[in-house]
Amino acid sequence: MQRTLGGLWPPVATAFDDDGGVDSKRLVQHSRRLLAAGASGLAILGTTSEANSLTLAERRNVIDAHLEAGIAADRLLPGTGACAIDDVVALTRHAGEVGAAGVLMLPPFYYKQVSDDGLFAFVARVIERTGAKIPRIVLYHIPPIAVVGWSLDLVRRLIDAFPGIVAGMKDSSGDFEHTRQAIDAFPELAVFPGAEVYLVKALAAGAAGCISATANVNAGPIAALIENWQEADAERRQAELNTVRQAVASRGMIAGIKAVLAARYGEASWLNVRPPLTKIDEAARAGLLCEPAIAALLEAAPA
Amino acid sequence: MQRTLGGLWPPVATAFDDDGGVDSKRLVQHSRRLLAAGASGLAILGTTSEANSLTLAERRNVIDAHLEAGIAADRLLPGTGACAIDDVVALTRHAGEVGAAGVLMLPPFYYKQVSDDGLFAFVARVIERTGAKIPRIVLYHIPPIAVVGWSLDLVRRLIDAFPGIVAGMKDSSGDFEHTRQAIDAFPELAVFPGAEVYLVKALAAGAAGCISATANVNAGPIAALIENWQEADAERRQAELNTVRQAVASRGMIAGIKAVLAARYGEASWLNVRPPLTKIDEAARAGLLCEPAIAALLEAAPA
Repeated sequence: MQRTLGGLWPPVATAFDDDGGVDSKRLVQHSRRLLAAGASGLAILGTTSEANSLTLAERRNVIDAHLEAGIAADRLLPGTGACAIDDVVALTRHAGEVGAAGVLMLPPFYYKQVSDDGLFAFVARVIERTGAKIPRIVLYHIPPIAVVGWSLDLVRRLIDAFPGIVAGMKDSSGDFEHTRQAIDAFPELAVFPGAEVYLVKALAAGAAGCISATANVNAGPIAALIENWQEADAERRQAELNTVRQAVASRGMIAGIKAVLAARYGEASWLNVRPPLTKIDEAARAGLLCEPAIAALLEAAPA
Repeated sequence: MQRTLGGLWPPVATAFDDDGGVDSKRLVQHSRRLLAAGASGLAILGTTSEANSLTLAERRNVIDAHLEAGIAADRLLPGTGACAIDDVVALTRHAGEVGAAGVLMLPPFYYKQVSDDGLFAFVARVIERTGAKIPRIVLYHIPPIAVVGWSLDLVRRLIDAFPGIVAGMKDSSGDFEHTRQAIDAFPELAVFPGAEVYLVKALAAGAAGCISATANVNAGPIAALIENWQEADAERRQAELNTVRQAVASRGMIAGIKAVLAARYGEASWLNVRPPLTKIDEAARAGLLCEPAIAALLEAAPA
């Protein structure tokens, strides 16, 4: 039986060594800790993972490192989006062959203002070429970064053309109304808001769970709220999640997450990012770690 | 002696067969015709070439196909931009090793609102890792598509840090004032406007030449105007170039160019594009070929 696409799937931050290489050991260790903290699975190779700053071979290695470490393939939801169809096919097929829970798929993001027909043809060709081992696809909608997005009309066409394959959507539009529209329009999809800022509202509307950058540092409380969002203190806990998120995001999301991980794990190498991103600067790092919400988080969940 | 970075370098449209594969034979034939029509060199693997829709191996093959066909390496200015540093390095090093005139380099284009420091670190790492065979770099500024661009401040920093390596800039901002600022600020760079719409003005201001999509269909007249922009009829000829460009661009630039090439060469396969782009529709194709400027072009330069 396939693992349900639901609950918390953190977009796992990628560990780099001081020369910029992927540090698989630290990465997988972080992944284990996220599962132990309550994550349902791992959305490796997403935006927070700096996946587009990795070569195809490196991305494949990240998947394999998790499997070699004994993490079950159906706990993995790797990002396989790219601008060239055959790159998407290579990675998607690998994910399918090893038995991943699914793949998180960006639209091709170089050309802008492309038509829904063109994006439909892109996905159709990916599915056709990937062949029998095609895993479930979670469409990754993140217009603030990719600029190109999956329109609701196009999602409907894709579901109808590829039922059972197009199985989910991560909505990182940042707009609750858009998430609600997607949930209402696509009862057959597992819809994940791309941030926990309106988590309770989204779950009440029928969201499957959450795929959020800040889950890298706050997995336990987010997973708990997904579990118990109907309890009386849900709004208070939602506010607490938002305080953490705001503290991190205001320092630059990815660099900020890595600063918290460096502190939690006592490993300065966690600060490393790949260009074009830049390491958090020292003042911002100090300010972040002194935020009461972050200090409390680090005390509550030490390495 | 290195070939001067100047004159007309068309961003060569890539020929695809009906299954979507790169048709190297038709592609190289087109490249030859562009050189015969007066192009100084070939900006293969650019935006018009759909380079980001090609895998790294396919891009490498496009370079090699030109060399195998006997086109001199110093007539090639391949695009080597990508989002992952080691992808840029692999292709840039190959271009350097074969002796290309230079490379046209996009900034990494996935993350948006990245800092100049991050982009500087990206280029620095590409140059360092590429090693001794680093070719000249023409910075490719195309914010309407890549969104991320090379700011003038950053270009200055790059020139100062890597003199002789950072050697040019393609300015596809579409803004003459921006092009003029770049020309004035960087006398050591070969600045190419990314379109011929303000060609005479740009040449008068000191531009090195032009790298323009429409050069795929109008190379002779553009090359001639670069040569003779100081003659009395320059403004009339500029207007003629603009009429051709407007006719093509209004049908979608890349699909429109391919429609003209399909007609000129009598090869319907030239209509093929890779998703997410879409083929020109039949009505637009008919309309384009009936435009007086396009009909005249096809009569003047038959296959």
